[in-house]
Amino acid sequence: MKIAVLGGDGFVGWPTSLHLSDRGHEVHILDNLSRRWIDTELGVQSLTPMDSIQERTRIWKQESGRTIRFHLIDVARDYEVFKAWLAEHRPDAIVHFAEQRAAPYSMKSARHKNYTVSNNVNATHHVLNALVELDLDAHLVHLGTMGVYGYSTVGAAIPEGYLPVGIETMAGETVRQEILYPANPGSIYHMTKCLDQLLFQFYAKNDGLRITDLHQGIVWGTNTDQTSRHVQLINRFDYDGDYGTVLNRFLIQAAIGYPLTVHGTGGQTRAFIHIQDSVRCIELALKSPPQRGERVKVFNQMTETHRVRDLAELVAKMTGAKIAWLPNPRKEAPENDLVVTNDGFLDLGLEPITLAEGLLSEVVDVARKYAYRVDRSRVPAVSAWTKEIAKEVETDPEHPRLRSVS
Amino acid sequence: MKIAVLGGDGFVGWPTSLHLSDRGHEVHILDNLSRRWIDTELGVQSLTPMDSIQERTRIWKQESGRTIRFHLIDVARDYEVFKAWLAEHRPDAIVHFAEQRAAPYSMKSARHKNYTVSNNVNATHHVLNALVELDLDAHLVHLGTMGVYGYSTVGAAIPEGYLPVGIETMAGETVRQEILYPANPGSIYHMTKCLDQLLFQFYAKNDGLRITDLHQGIVWGTNTDQTSRHVQLINRFDYDGDYGTVLNRFLIQAAIGYPLTVHGTGGQTRAFIHIQDSVRCIELALKSPPQRGERVKVFNQMTETHRVRDLAELVAKMTGAKIAWLPNPRKEAPENDLVVTNDGFLDLGLEPITLAEGLLSEVVDVARKYAYRVDRSRVPAVSAWTKEIAKEVETDPEHPRLRSVS
Ligand SMILES: NC(=O)c1ccc[n+]([C@@H]2O[C@H](COP(=O)([O-])OP(=O)(O)OC[C@H]3O[C@@H](n4cnc5c(N)ncnc54)[C@H](O)[C@@H]3O)[C@@H](O)[C@H]2O)c1
Ligand SMILES: NC(=O)c1ccc[n+]([C@@H]2O[C@H](COP(=O)([O-])OP(=O)(O)OC[C@H]3O[C@@H](n4cnc5c(N)ncnc54)[C@H](O)[C@@H]3O)[C@@H](O)[C@H]2O)c1
Repeated sequence: MKIAVLGGDGFVGWPTSLHLSDRGHEVHILDNLSRRWIDTELGVQSLTPMDSIQERTRIWKQESGRTIRFHLIDVARDYEVFKAWLAEHRPDAIVHFAEQRAAPYSMKSARHKNYTVSNNVNATHHVLNALVELDLDAHLVHLGTMGVYGYSTVGAAIPEGYLPVGIETMAGETVRQEILYPANPGSIYHMTKCLDQLLFQFYAKNDGLRITDLHQGIVWGTNTDQTSRHVQLINRFDYDGDYGTVLNRFLIQAAIGYPLTVHGTGGQTRAFIHIQDSVRCIELALKSPPQRGERVKVFNQMTETHRVRDLAELVAKMTGAKIAWLPNPRKEAPENDLVVTNDGFLDLGLEPITLAEGLLSEVVDVARKYAYRVDRSRVPAVSAWTKEIAKEVETDPEHPRLRSVS
Repeated sequence: MKIAVLGGDGFVGWPTSLHLSDRGHEVHILDNLSRRWIDTELGVQSLTPMDSIQERTRIWKQESGRTIRFHLIDVARDYEVFKAWLAEHRPDAIVHFAEQRAAPYSMKSARHKNYTVSNNVNATHHVLNALVELDLDAHLVHLGTMGVYGYSTVGAAIPEGYLPVGIETMAGETVRQEILYPANPGSIYHMTKCLDQLLFQFYAKNDGLRITDLHQGIVWGTNTDQTSRHVQLINRFDYDGDYGTVLNRFLIQAAIGYPLTVHGTGGQTRAFIHIQDSVRCIELALKSPPQRGERVKVFNQMTETHRVRDLAELVAKMTGAKIAWLPNPRKEAPENDLVVTNDGFLDLGLEPITLAEGLLSEVVDVARKYAYRVDRSRVPAVSAWTKEIAKEVETDPEHPRLRSVS
């Protein structure tokens, strides 16, 4: 297959591109490199020394003999350029990672909110619009998030995209219907993923586009079979307060002797998946596209759920790290349960890598190896979800978030 | 109250501004005049000769002694300019009409789709974002549409925004919850209104913004108590295939001896409201804002529902016009029922003006008076909803949509 990977320079996009290339597909990366610019804006860098995309693809060619082509295109801003590229290459499938994906970054300031909404909505809409305009029947695989549901359930397992509900008619009967699982996003970033869902629903129904939406859990780990083949193929590893996600942050904190920062009671339950499984899932999804005219196919792309404090305790036990209990900058319930169905990928043959598999220590090794590159001042999370939360922190000089924990 | 009317130069915005000014409020119109530019783009004009907004507000001052100030601002593109305006004026309430509102226009081409999504999503998001950034507790009243539900129900009356559903838990119990009524938009335009709903839900929950969303039916009529006071205060009247809405189009078609163009079987049921009621409803909504922390208040702003063919027959009987049955350019069910609850406004004291009230003939009079201004070539609807529908029309030279019906 000829596959366009939008956002293929990112944390999940790069190993996905390598994996698909390794499987013999013709892979094209389209990326505007905005994440590298955001690193510069925030003054942070990947823990792992990450080469330019041009250099990475050169090394991949040298190691594997396979070509991955890179195209510098902004999917959200340059509709015409993007469309011209699609018209010329007419890929069989598009994997769409090209969005601003950090919840804390999306809540930093009014400018960051506007950027996240505009970048993510326009990127997704341009892809859909161009497929229709060009009469291109490519299968679109999008990366969404488990977070569209706001991490809270009513004691029901989160199904894969659709919820059977009973609606009472005027005649007093109950009609059963399947609706998009109701959204309850917890940040501007998560909200854009809910907007994406509606865009997909509309274009699948109106234009018969074939779309798969992967509701992904939090990705952990860093290496895959392909990124491990050469030091310069190494994947990005974010540890900062904006882009670093919870488990990877604990592992790096442990590696540099920084306390594990748990927000609130740590009672939030989250869904997780290892990066190696993430790229496998994407391959599986590409293999079983929906039919034209079928509704959007939704998979929950996760393998296990954990409470944040349990993860912290696990990492603490493994590494001897301490735990620092900090106030929660997010507006969310302090404790929640989360039960998620992932039958879709299990049925397609996924054999999950779980935390128990020993890969945790592999990540700690990577973290220790590059610990000299860590800027400790970038470790705390600093975006506050609301003005009230921001004020609370500002007016209390003894606030635990300001007391140095390093 | 000091009230900012975003999109106050438009069909509903102008009479709303006059009505609120007449009631003693300090009204400011913010508009980028994009609708006047779209008239130019499409080569159409309002049936009624509409003066510039500067001239209209001058006449209003002369007739009523009241000042309405106009500010040329693009809410979707100039976040900083809009925010600076809000910071200076700090209005008590904002009425938000500033969106591209024609479904056929939104489906015309890829460019029109992109414009509609980007204009509408950014306009709404900028309003919300600025309220939070400025710590401004203004009540936001937004004009949404009944069309978010796709004009189809399962035999249940459409409630005001929220649907009680039963969700089955893993324990086999049924938990009752109220969710946003599931969206099922029929065009890109309608879809943007669904995106708006999610934005409102998020900002009400996360930041405590006070928001009322009015799900409006199709507005008919043209004059209100205030626009009738001077010929130069006259309201816009769209009759073209893009912006003209069904009942007003029938009335103008009847006035110029053009057959009433019914799409498909005319079996689509739609919700309607007279422009005079529309402005009254907005005033009622302004009077009873939600509390801070309350969920978004949703009203169905409509007074009656009718099947399109019944309306055509009514107008035909009244005026002697013929009916032309044309293929439907929209992708929708040929026939649907629609039952809508509007208890919210009835409880607040609305006394609906119905079609039976004799106002139909008033509109026919306006239409006859200005019939000499009609460009007959602009009457047919030309946007096709999908490539298939467009092709069907293109390849059949005998297609009824191409046979001149004038
Ligand atoms: N990392 C996770 O834990 C996680 C969890 C759930 C879902 N996801 C989703 O997976 C996707 C990829 O996540 P990631 O961790 O690899 O993020 P990332 O930030 O590392 O990668 C995103 C890539 O997209 C590019 N991009 C952004 N906007 C673009 C635009 N307008 N045009 C072209 N390129 C653009 C960026 O430059 C970057 O290379 C995201 O959509 C994210 O929401 C990630
Ligand atoms: N007319 C109807 O039958 C009807 C029915 C249901 C809902 N509505 C809703 O009511 C609202 C008003 O409808 P209308 O018929 O008055 O439409 P309209 O097109 O006549 O007016 C919209 C106004 O908003 C302005 N505008 C658009 N984008 C803007 C931007 N980015 N910045 C500043 N101004 C901007 C336009 O210039 C125009 O004056 C719309 O949101 C529409 O969706 C209308």
